[in-house]
Amino acid sequence: MTKITKVEIMDVRFPTSRGLHGSDAMNAAPDNSAAYCILHTDDPGGLCGHGFTLTCGRGNEICAAAIGSLSPFVVGLDVDEMAADMGGLLRRMSDDGQLRWLGPQKGVIHLSIAAVLNAAWDLIAKKAGKPLWRLLLDMPPKEITALIDWRHLRDALTEDEAQDMLQQRMNGREQRIAEMERDGYPAYITSVAWLGYSDEQVRRLAEEALADGWTKFKMKVGLDINEDRRRAAFLRSAIGDESKLMMDANQVWGVGEAIDAMRQLAEYDPWWIEEPTHPDDILGHRKIAEAIAPIRVATGEHCANAVMFKQFLQNGAMEVCQIDSCRLASVNENIAVLLLAEKFGVTVCPHSGGVGLCEYVQHLAMFDYIAVSADLTDRALEYVSHLHEHFIDPVKMRRGRYLTPDAPGYSAEMKVESLRDYLFPTGKVWRE
Amino acid sequence: MTKITKVEIMDVRFPTSRGLHGSDAMNAAPDNSAAYCILHTDDPGGLCGHGFTLTCGRGNEICAAAIGSLSPFVVGLDVDEMAADMGGLLRRMSDDGQLRWLGPQKGVIHLSIAAVLNAAWDLIAKKAGKPLWRLLLDMPPKEITALIDWRHLRDALTEDEAQDMLQQRMNGREQRIAEMERDGYPAYITSVAWLGYSDEQVRRLAEEALADGWTKFKMKVGLDINEDRRRAAFLRSAIGDESKLMMDANQVWGVGEAIDAMRQLAEYDPWWIEEPTHPDDILGHRKIAEAIAPIRVATGEHCANAVMFKQFLQNGAMEVCQIDSCRLASVNENIAVLLLAEKFGVTVCPHSGGVGLCEYVQHLAMFDYIAVSADLTDRALEYVSHLHEHFIDPVKMRRGRYLTPDAPGYSAEMKVESLRDYLFPTGKVWRE
Repeated sequence: MTKITKVEIMDVRFPTSRGLHGSDAMNAAPDNSAAYCILHTDDPGGLCGHGFTLTCGRGNEICAAAIGSLSPFVVGLDVDEMAADMGGLLRRMSDDGQLRWLGPQKGVIHLSIAAVLNAAWDLIAKKAGKPLWRLLLDMPPKEITALIDWRHLRDALTEDEAQDMLQQRMNGREQRIAEMERDGYPAYITSVAWLGYSDEQVRRLAEEALADGWTKFKMKVGLDINEDRRRAAFLRSAIGDESKLMMDANQVWGVGEAIDAMRQLAEYDPWWIEEPTHPDDILGHRKIAEAIAPIRVATGEHCANAVMFKQFLQNGAMEVCQIDSCRLASVNENIAVLLLAEKFGVTVCPHSGGVGLCEYVQHLAMFDYIAVSADLTDRALEYVSHLHEHFIDPVKMRRGRYLTPDAPGYSAEMKVESLRDYLFPTGKVWRE
Repeated sequence: MTKITKVEIMDVRFPTSRGLHGSDAMNAAPDNSAAYCILHTDDPGGLCGHGFTLTCGRGNEICAAAIGSLSPFVVGLDVDEMAADMGGLLRRMSDDGQLRWLGPQKGVIHLSIAAVLNAAWDLIAKKAGKPLWRLLLDMPPKEITALIDWRHLRDALTEDEAQDMLQQRMNGREQRIAEMERDGYPAYITSVAWLGYSDEQVRRLAEEALADGWTKFKMKVGLDINEDRRRAAFLRSAIGDESKLMMDANQVWGVGEAIDAMRQLAEYDPWWIEEPTHPDDILGHRKIAEAIAPIRVATGEHCANAVMFKQFLQNGAMEVCQIDSCRLASVNENIAVLLLAEKFGVTVCPHSGGVGLCEYVQHLAMFDYIAVSADLTDRALEYVSHLHEHFIDPVKMRRGRYLTPDAPGYSAEMKVESLRDYLFPTGKVWRE
């Protein structure tokens, strides 16, 4: 028996706003931050699980408080018993008859459930001695579907259908594993064109990325249409007509504005427009998608839960499905969305960036390809270049692709010195 | 000049779970609680504003923490300047480039914005010497529409349309004010049939309520269809065929289950079914509404924001619109929803109950009738009987109607001794 003995909680913030890394039309100056927790155990070798949820700085302390309120759900659990019923653990946390009022399944409480479950999955994978994607591949379809809260999803997809889908994908699995280990998972890069970057900076970063093998680039839009046009022309000329160019408005437009803007930006051949309006607006996204086709509408990083994803997919309002490892309730709910997207034939391109999302979602993307979609057409995992140096097992990139992670766990354990120096507000970086 | 000098925050909880008051299929044993704040000022007479957001107990501390994180938005403000730009204040709080990630406009951060703005409205109304509904009636249409964040609503309703709607309703306004002051606003009662109550308790309470003039009653359903049928038959026989009987499933059903259940419960002539499935499921509610017509579908108490309400209304998925004074961003966002509901011709029956919601929403219902809808057809404001004794200016009921509140403010100031005794976890009630 290995028991979880306590949950250690840290408010860790990186002052990314100083360089305007991560800046966009809605979030002018985010400090990528982690409401971080460590599930300590009584294992004599010091086994523990690390996990977090991403925030943009202010408010990280609220998620840290919520993780504290959720700690009683895991303290005292035997790790193997927990591993055998991760679906039950999610359900107990998200259905608590008092806490549920704070959501349900959205906002701070859901982000914080993600942090605790991310740490639990890291702990389970480390104890099993496997990287998370491998751990998931070793679970039979029935165990995978048992991770999911099906109550409000069955009008779109049932457990039985999902099991059949997973069973069918057993074919060719070893070949896809070998392919991932050889070639890696295709990616696109966002960090050449943050909204706060100068033209000169964008050109230099784009040229470096091209030389490094990148073929897909994302830019931020939405503050001013003339400036968007100018920057789009500039970036398009820098990356050439063969490269893919995605645009991201980070929610600032109304429905009509989004349609107008994308008609003006169409000449730069955007591969998709991301978050063209409020992330809750399922009907609005559908209207936009109809009006601007063939430009595709992408969203998901602020999509609160699987019930919202279900509707976006049912309604043809999400043509690129951007799962998020810290917004949804960890591996459990992300797998629910991967299965829903597959059912509706929608391309999944995980949201990444911030701090540590790249480390997390690579596991989910690998699992998606090998066990769910078996398809790489138009798929690309987001990549941003900053903050990887804080992780013990950072992503490994080669020519615009994520290579398979091979260390046991969920890859998002930060270095001791990073946790110490970036602790808010008392760490060295914040005291200065 | 009167300045806000500090925000005092209290975690106040009432042990309602001991009597199963408020119990339903999803929330078996809630402790109605308030994440409470007081905006203190430098006014020599001690002027201050009281406000809170409702929770079900555990997690109240998370909202209290969030109120702390939001305090810098109001500390130092001049009350009159704040009053002149409450739309700007909402926008600054809900659009903060770092905090926004925690929502946007949902969950803990939005509930907590409601608490702070509720207190700000209380302060403004007290300074003006008017009950809140009167203060709102004295604001010209242009000032009312300036309270609202229109960015993501314009595909359904524009500022200009809203101003025209309000302008048109200037006709007959004095007559409606006089009517409200004479007769009060019609209500229905929920507190005769909490799920945890025994048959005997339900019968006694229903008989008392009938004798007191009540004609509309709500019961909780959703745990077991046979038990729901039995209890529906029982309550229907107790209240008679002339009374209205509403049912509330508190989100426990899937879409298909809800349709099946309501077909079985139709014989008891439900006036509406409330929260038949997950509160985010706009498409699901529409399917249910179509399948079980003429039974109406009601929802809103967990509808996170005006963008969600907009879609429920656009999609015919909400036939009874249940605004919530603590889930939405206070008066500002509730008025947005009242205007949207009027535009789509949907009946508003505010959610109430918990602790203090009755005190709050009576103001919004009065404003709705007098300034927005001018219609009482099929309208009824929810009422529950518990916890009013903790308020300085509690609701006044007569024969199943809310009488107009007349004390200055927003009516939700708790008594000093209640704040002291129910403080969690150190107050007398929790130490015992």
